[in-house]
Order: sequence, then C-alpha cells, then structure tokens
Amino acid sequence: MISERLKKQIEFLLEADKLKSLYRQTYIINDEKRSDSMRDLEGDEGRYKRRENDAEHSFHLALFAMTLAEHANIPVDLLRVMKMVIIHDIVEIDAGDTYCYDKKGYESKRDREERAADRLFGILPEDQAAEYRALWEEFEAMDTAEARFAAALDRMQPMLLNYTKNGMSWQEHGISYGQVYERNKHIANGSEELWEYMEAALEDALGRGILKND
Amino acid sequence: MISERLKKQIEFLLEADKLKSLYRQTYIINDEKRSDSMRDLEGDEGRYKRRENDAEHSFHLALFAMTLAEHANIPVDLLRVMKMVIIHDIVEIDAGDTYCYDKKGYESKRDREERAADRLFGILPEDQAAEYRALWEEFEAMDTAEARFAAALDRMQPMLLNYTKNGMSWQEHGISYGQVYERNKHIANGSEELWEYMEAALEDALGRGILKND
Repeated sequence: MISERLKKQIEFLLEADKLKSLYRQTYIINDEKRSDSMRDLEGDEGRYKRRENDAEHSFHLALFAMTLAEHANIPVDLLRVMKMVIIHDIVEIDAGDTYCYDKKGYESKRDREERAADRLFGILPEDQAAEYRALWEEFEAMDTAEARFAAALDRMQPMLLNYTKNGMSWQEHGISYGQVYERNKHIANGSEELWEYMEAALEDALGRGILKND
Repeated sequence: MISERLKKQIEFLLEADKLKSLYRQTYIINDEKRSDSMRDLEGDEGRYKRRENDAEHSFHLALFAMTLAEHANIPVDLLRVMKMVIIHDIVEIDAGDTYCYDKKGYESKRDREERAADRLFGILPEDQAAEYRALWEEFEAMDTAEARFAAALDRMQPMLLNYTKNGMSWQEHGISYGQVYERNKHIANGSEELWEYMEAALEDALGRGILKND
C-alpha cells in the first residue's frame, strides 16, 4: 500500500521539475556543446549564450552554501541554509522570475509569490507544507543569520556569473555600476568577506569597461 | 585582501558551472516554453524533448532528499545526504556521464572518475578537497545509511521522470522491464518504502506498454 503522504510528496517533487524550464536573466558560463560525454547528444543543448534556469541556480547556491559557509558573519546552521536555497525559487513556478533590477515587477512580486506559495507548498503533507513555507518566509525576511547568508549567496552567484561572462547580462539590460552596487551591497549583511570579494570584482568590471559607470 | 583560500573556493564553484552543460539520458518532464514569466525569453530554451543536465538532476535530488528523508530505512544525517547528492556528479565534468544501462562504459568508469576527482576536488583548499572526496567515495561505496539513501534517490529520480514522461528514454534505448528492475532494485537498500512505490510504477509502465517485457 502506497501512503497518501508519499503520493503528495511525489506530486510536489514532480511539480518542482518545472523549475528546469524557468529561465533567469543570467547566462551560464560554460555553454559549449560538451563533446567529451559518452554519447553524441541529440538536439542543440549546448548552443551559444544559454540562460540559467531556476533548478541550475538553486543547485549552484547549495554548492556555494556548503563551500562558503565559513565566510558567514555569524556561524550558520548549514542544513537550514541548504534547505532554504533549494526551495527559495519554487514560488517562481507560478509567480515567474522577477529580474532584480525590475522596479515595476517588484511592486507586485510579493502578492504573486504569496499565492504561489499557498498552492505549491500546499501540495505537500501539512507538516511539510508548513516547514517549507516557514523556510521560504524566513529567507524572504532576511532576519536570521541563515537567511542573510542564503540571501547573500543568492545575490553573489548571478553577479559572479555575469562578471565571469564579461558582463553580458548587465550590458543587455543597460545596468550600471551604481545599480549593481546598490542592489547587492546587502551581501555584506550575510558575509563581509564575500562582499569584499564582489566589490573588488565590480571595481575590476568597471575598470575593464564591461560594466558602465553611472 | 582576498585570501588564497577564498580564491580557490570560487575557482571550484565556477568550474562546477560546467555541470549545467552536461546532459543525461533522462528527459525533463515539463519542457514547454514558459510563457508566464516576466519577459519573453530569447532563444529556444523550451523546445520539445529536452534532456536533463547534471546541475538540474543534483538540484532535484537535494529536494528529494529533504522531502523524502523520513522514508529511509535507517534514520539519516540529512545534511550529509544533501552534501552528497550536490557533489556526487561533479566528477562527470571530466569523466562524462555513463548511462546506467551501458555495461561497457561502466568498465572504465571508475578509473575515469578517480582521475576526475583528483583534479576537480583538488581545486579546493586541502581540507575541503578531502571532505568532498570522502563524501564522493562514501556515496560510491554505498556502505553507510546516508550513502544508501542518496544512491536510492539517484536511481529513483530518473526512473520517476522516465515513468512520468511515458518511458521516452527507456524506449529510445530499447530498455526492458527486467533491465530496469535489476538496475534499480538496490533502491530497497536505502528505502523499502520508496522501492515499493517504484515497483508499482514499473508494473504500471509494463501494463501500459510504455516499458517492454523481456
């Protein structure tokens, strides 16, 4: 007998597959066709300039979390940080991705995401729905050490990708140094050390002209 | 001053971006172009029949782990399981993906992956290189409760995707019920309950003719 509880959990896990089709503004760094894999791949998965999707972004954040946890300003419960970054974008399945420099999109973001959280976490058994909802609320509120560190990584990862990709996404959207600086300086609330690294990267981007001055 | 330690960590995190371009045999379930996102997306990210890449697979496993941990045969240290599934495919950056029904590929798999582990984890500071290498060895050996549960999820997730996608990948490779059963029955070593679920799914796949009989 398969329990109703397990059925709900599986339904949620299958729903989360949609994060793999939800594309962000950031480009992945390595987007060449991988020729060293065991088989020739059909299709054109490796074509030029491929955007990152939410599943890839969340994977990357989990790896950032476990690799960089020692740089958090305050020691963090790493399991909670990893859970948070794995579920933080699930609401986008219904609410869509809001580009972080899109002021208008941000006005309606909260409402859209609350409704999405109701439906999506509501697929789970009640206790897990409550746990995941609480983790997501904690992440959004940025009041705990774990949430501040998770939010710092969530800002650092796309910045680092854009920087490594020579500012491609910044240039496309006409984003300036001042905008990037203002939008991301809260990284320091999670980790002074990581923000110091990103500040140096921004200076370099400005110097090299891949990020425009204000 | 940016520490050498942080520089190595960032180099490793950027190298791991390559997992986003390493495609597996499994298809993602939801591969339609998402029209409800905030902006029209350029390119053709949402074309028909898109394979899953290693980053997406690892993300999905982390979500499986936190959602299904209660079904492990023996209580597991969830943080160690999550770390394991996040790093378990990193060796494929150098060693490539070996399709789980490819017997020939499996003969050389271990050698290729050992060399890959040396180089890839070797990018990290020594203590982290040792930690990640040990996690990967533990996963591969399947001797601990955590490794057996992580390995169970690693088999269950593509099976569940293939089943939901009406056996597309099984049919393409001419895979039979008996092959899927043999290759995946070790799921029971990590979780009897999850294997019971997958057995029922396999029976259903056979009954509906989306998986061929031997």
